[in-house]
Amino acid sequence: MHPRPIEHIAQIRVRYADTDQMGIVYYGKYFEYFEVARTEMLRAIGLPYRAIEENGFQLPVVDASAKYFRGARYDDLLLVKASMKPANSPKLEIEYKIVLDITGDVIATGATTLVFIDARSGKPSRPPAMYREVIKQYLAETVLE
Amino acid sequence: MHPRPIEHIAQIRVRYADTDQMGIVYYGKYFEYFEVARTEMLRAIGLPYRAIEENGFQLPVVDASAKYFRGARYDDLLLVKASMKPANSPKLEIEYKIVLDITGDVIATGATTLVFIDARSGKPSRPPAMYREVIKQYLAETVLE
Amino acid sequence: MHPRPIEHIAQIRVRYADTDQMGIVYYGKYFEYFEVARTEMLRAIGLPYRAIEENGFQLPVVDASAKYFRGARYDDLLLVKASMKPANSPKLEIEYKIVLDITGDVIATGATTLVFIDARSGKPSRPPAMYREVIKQYLAETVLE
Amino acid sequence: MHPRPIEHIAQIRVRYADTDQMGIVYYGKYFEYFEVARTEMLRAIGLPYRAIEENGFQLPVVDASAKYFRGARYDDLLLVKASMKPANSPKLEIEYKIVLDITGDVIATGATTLVFIDARSGKPSRPPAMYREVIKQYLAETVLE
Repeated sequence: MHPRPIEHIAQIRVRYADTDQMGIVYYGKYFEYFEVARTEMLRAIGLPYRAIEENGFQLPVVDASAKYFRGARYDDLLLVKASMKPANSPKLEIEYKIVLDITGDVIATGATTLVFIDARSGKPSRPPAMYREVIKQYLAETVLE
Repeated sequence: MHPRPIEHIAQIRVRYADTDQMGIVYYGKYFEYFEVARTEMLRAIGLPYRAIEENGFQLPVVDASAKYFRGARYDDLLLVKASMKPANSPKLEIEYKIVLDITGDVIATGATTLVFIDARSGKPSRPPAMYREVIKQYLAETVLE
Repeated sequence: MHPRPIEHIAQIRVRYADTDQMGIVYYGKYFEYFEVARTEMLRAIGLPYRAIEENGFQLPVVDASAKYFRGARYDDLLLVKASMKPANSPKLEIEYKIVLDITGDVIATGATTLVFIDARSGKPSRPPAMYREVIKQYLAETVLE
Repeated sequence: MHPRPIEHIAQIRVRYADTDQMGIVYYGKYFEYFEVARTEMLRAIGLPYRAIEENGFQLPVVDASAKYFRGARYDDLLLVKASMKPANSPKLEIEYKIVLDITGDVIATGATTLVFIDARSGKPSRPPAMYREVIKQYLAETVLE
């Protein structure tokens, strides 16, 4: 038994601006794709990032990594999956997997750690109440596998 | 007789990230190059943009345009000239010209209009005192041509 | 009587990466939004840009401009309308209008001119046959207003 | 005794475009700073990346990571150090350290792995002769510490 994972799949269409002269997506751009996926994941569970900031918190990234398996190309439709284990912690450890929609080929995987910060003090902080509440619900639902 | 123009030339090396799959700099990227040139121009005349913000002002762009003559390529060294006529106005009308350092070929030209905004009210505003002072000095020096 | 205009509305969600420290979308970023809208417009009429390149053509931007009315903010959902008059010309003159989905407020307007280039010679070129065919259909359908 | 490391320090001024609404440099942007530093490092040892491509090779990134210690701010002058151990391998393992010029505070560290690819086959490849030659020279010079 373990808690139900939090996960979400975002669709991203590769822009011309995202490519470089090698004809593939620039390696730094994938971190923006990760952002889109985690933003949509947080929105989907009732925690729009904008609301987090409006409640006086920031959620900066403290580490990030990616592995690149194939270059995505202009106009490719990508599925970007973000997932995290629900945990009552100031740290969010989110993993990513990007696949090409049409073939399922893995383009890249990655991970980021984000930390709740109190916007006034600039210091790490206990997560906002709205976040703790959502996590509590996830932790309450255990799933059999 | 007319006032001495305010102008500055910034050097920019084209990054791989700036190129697209056509093998040239992405058209939207040049607006970032314009930003570098106008920032350095303002710094050179004693008006670092950071100080403008610290004095409670913002300086958003209200219009921008560019004409593209040749595509700049990866690793090209570009000279980006920003220039403006000194004027005691809340509007800054800045012109740009980008040339390839090695040949002098014109890559692009452009223009932007920026407007001083009071950061608290979000409304257009008389320029900050530090700006008016610098402009006054420029206007005092007339040049013969 | 005049030919039916070619137009398309793309939806874009503002990414955190798109904002700057003024709390609004960076002015150069809108040109990327314009790209998304014109790409989707061309795709919608049966001219995916990728196919244009595969047929040996390029379609660089030769001029671009934007006017900014309100800053779009993080997570805003934007409607980006691209439109052009069908014309049997190597030049595509495309206009853009970005509005905030929720209120209809105008964020920005803009225009770009693109020119068909023969990828081998690098010279301006008659449009590809697939493009001329589509334009012919639009020109054949006149609309009353 | 060990071979002299290959290293280089690039200076980067933070652009307004690089910041996000948190008032610090967007986390994905640092990978572009890493690119600037490794490009200048390769140029400094006689291997301009453009020449690598002209010799029929590509050098894509296969993994990348960063740790963020402090947010860099608009207009900060950063020193970005890239370093690698000389090795006669198709893989380049490059490490990065970004410090704030004025205080020496560490902003971020990172690492990337790049692999030589034959541009025609798209397959990993023995490094180009020009690269092997430079590495040979570095390996010949051992340093005492």
